[in-house]
Amino acid sequence: MNKGNFLNIGLFGFGVVGEGIYKVLQQTPSLNATIKKVCIRQKEKKRNASASLFTTKYEDLLHDNDINLIVELIDDAADAYEIVTTALKLGKPVVSANKKMIAENLPELLQLQKMYGTPFLYEAAVGGSIPIIRNLEEYYDNDLLHSFSGIINGSTNYILTKIISDGLSIKEALLEAQVAGFAESNPKLDISGQDAVNKLTILLLHAYGVFVRPEDLLFTGIEHIDAMDIRYAREKGYRIKLVAQAVKLHNKGLAAFVLPQFVNSGNLLHGVQNEYNGMVLESRLADKQFLYGKGAGRYPTSSAVLSDISALHYNYRYEYKKRANQSELSIAADYFFRVYVSFNNWEDVDKMDFEFIEELHSTEERQYLLGVIHFNKLKEADWFFNPAVSVIACPDPVVQKEEIVGLSLKKISLQLAGVSD
Amino acid sequence: MNKGNFLNIGLFGFGVVGEGIYKVLQQTPSLNATIKKVCIRQKEKKRNASASLFTTKYEDLLHDNDINLIVELIDDAADAYEIVTTALKLGKPVVSANKKMIAENLPELLQLQKMYGTPFLYEAAVGGSIPIIRNLEEYYDNDLLHSFSGIINGSTNYILTKIISDGLSIKEALLEAQVAGFAESNPKLDISGQDAVNKLTILLLHAYGVFVRPEDLLFTGIEHIDAMDIRYAREKGYRIKLVAQAVKLHNKGLAAFVLPQFVNSGNLLHGVQNEYNGMVLESRLADKQFLYGKGAGRYPTSSAVLSDISALHYNYRYEYKKRANQSELSIAADYFFRVYVSFNNWEDVDKMDFEFIEELHSTEERQYLLGVIHFNKLKEADWFFNPAVSVIACPDPVVQKEEIVGLSLKKISLQLAGVSD
Repeated sequence: MNKGNFLNIGLFGFGVVGEGIYKVLQQTPSLNATIKKVCIRQKEKKRNASASLFTTKYEDLLHDNDINLIVELIDDAADAYEIVTTALKLGKPVVSANKKMIAENLPELLQLQKMYGTPFLYEAAVGGSIPIIRNLEEYYDNDLLHSFSGIINGSTNYILTKIISDGLSIKEALLEAQVAGFAESNPKLDISGQDAVNKLTILLLHAYGVFVRPEDLLFTGIEHIDAMDIRYAREKGYRIKLVAQAVKLHNKGLAAFVLPQFVNSGNLLHGVQNEYNGMVLESRLADKQFLYGKGAGRYPTSSAVLSDISALHYNYRYEYKKRANQSELSIAADYFFRVYVSFNNWEDVDKMDFEFIEELHSTEERQYLLGVIHFNKLKEADWFFNPAVSVIACPDPVVQKEEIVGLSLKKISLQLAGVSD
Repeated sequence: MNKGNFLNIGLFGFGVVGEGIYKVLQQTPSLNATIKKVCIRQKEKKRNASASLFTTKYEDLLHDNDINLIVELIDDAADAYEIVTTALKLGKPVVSANKKMIAENLPELLQLQKMYGTPFLYEAAVGGSIPIIRNLEEYYDNDLLHSFSGIINGSTNYILTKIISDGLSIKEALLEAQVAGFAESNPKLDISGQDAVNKLTILLLHAYGVFVRPEDLLFTGIEHIDAMDIRYAREKGYRIKLVAQAVKLHNKGLAAFVLPQFVNSGNLLHGVQNEYNGMVLESRLADKQFLYGKGAGRYPTSSAVLSDISALHYNYRYEYKKRANQSELSIAADYFFRVYVSFNNWEDVDKMDFEFIEELHSTEERQYLLGVIHFNKLKEADWFFNPAVSVIACPDPVVQKEEIVGLSLKKISLQLAGVSD
């Protein structure tokens, strides 16, 4: 019922989101916030606001004592890190949407928040408009979170939807995504899975209190998906989605990865189409939950940034509760994984890497196999990185060690049949 | 990163949820909370805990200075009100799941929180395990919320699922829901829609800052649904769901009601089956969002109560921001409504109440019509309350006044054809 002080914002970046927020704050006095100054790179560029609003000097924002909130919305991760850390040290709260910068510097950014007592919010960095971070932070801290599984890259989901459901080629789909504004002109970060794995590291911290660098997680994107994979998915009634997933193992370990995944119609992610994002959470008491909303685009991102601005009126800050309570968890590779792999030549994939192979299919152009592999072997397999090899996780891909015992009889029988050798 | 003081809880009620929470807190010392005393009605009943834990006297909890949190989980709404208001006045924070008591006393409960500065949390009262209240409270305060539309009664949703998807009769379905533990032995509150409308009033406060008494909202349950309605739904590919809905009108008015509704497969509520709850939110910037999870049962409720307990460690309280910011909104009846109505005899329903009738169907046993009616007329129609008449909202039932102009030509043509007279 009380409402905090007026917020004078120093805004870095005036792209579509920055400009959108400037307008919303102008039109909505009840938000009790205004953009005092905007720092941009190119002063010459024509802007839809008074020239006196703009500067090219960081310090005009960071060292203005009137400015009591920094909103950082620039592309460059290194510059963003400089801006955010300086502001936090100066005691100025920061809102950012820079998932790359955040993912790469989580321990440092936590340390600064703690040392200087300055809040740093970044809801827009993951899941666009969906309050994923806030919900993980506030809501799943007392109920054991078994797993989460999410579509957190709107561009690739848009492309996959066009391919799987509308029958476009990968090239056509990418072009359409760019035209629709859901993919960057350089879509490499999205397509390669790098953007999704960046976001996954942020989720892992808020969901499980775990620090991990993006480069230490296994990930791939949608680049290697082949026409055969799409045919296979259609035949089985699956959709292919780029899924970021984390599953608690029995031994305080945590499975975490980003891979294309076959998703059946019983999975709530099946219905997440186009630029939408979605996340399924499974916990001991609450059981299955699902959060869904727009993950890419100007307005959804603006919505999340505005929510953070608004939360700062009430001195909201992330508490990183799981970091304090559950820090014994860590990323593990000691489990098994159910995958589909397609390839051009028999020798492209080393079959001996697999615990067992459940299915093999061969045509003149392309072959595929379905099998169970130790996750570490998958992580270290050279063929995983071969562009001619496509690796897609099966539904419920994580197989805990305990489950493998019953399955190993099958391996023997397959070996006897000469299939896995 | 800081964690508040240890919580000594005084618990009212030791049913499945109360007992569950007692056990979870015992097994999870990291939650920094314990049940110090439990107040029960019948001291003789055998309990799965030491006898010294129990008392039958309110004051043993309310006047114990060690107890710094009251958790109220009893059935009786009048007793619950007494307990909650006394605790708030004594400065003891309260967690409650008593939606009936809360819905009937919202203005008073807000006033007490404000006067005594004592937090009162009740996430478990709506949507079971889904953090609906917290999200409305924290997340949609700066983005114009156009509408929400939710399945918020797990029992009736379970029954409807069994009827529509599994082909059971209403009687069989109710019995099965009771056996499965999703319906009370006296299911009247659920079946009549009273429970859903109670929850809707709570949502309206957190979503729009509007106070309204449950009895002032139009609602009905699933009692009047007829076999013909089910056949009609199947033919059209609809499911029937009991939907609590609110839609912002153009004139600061708010449409709000609880009615069975035909839900098509494009609506996210279509996939909300059995005891699950779900809510679709539509806002200006974030566009469409969806929250989904278990809405009934021991564990989901426990999960929500534990989240509230945990939030009190961090001095969380509802701010009722929309009450402060958007209080110019109010419940309106000045709009039009698209409904399906089925009945046994031609004279059961006054056709002149309708602006226009789009479809009429008549068989020997039962007739139905599809039409547009002024909401006020629907609210005041005697036939609405006739048990032999079934009223089901069509998809997107709210028709704003501005939209009716274009439609009225149709009315004239129907009148000319003698259908609507």
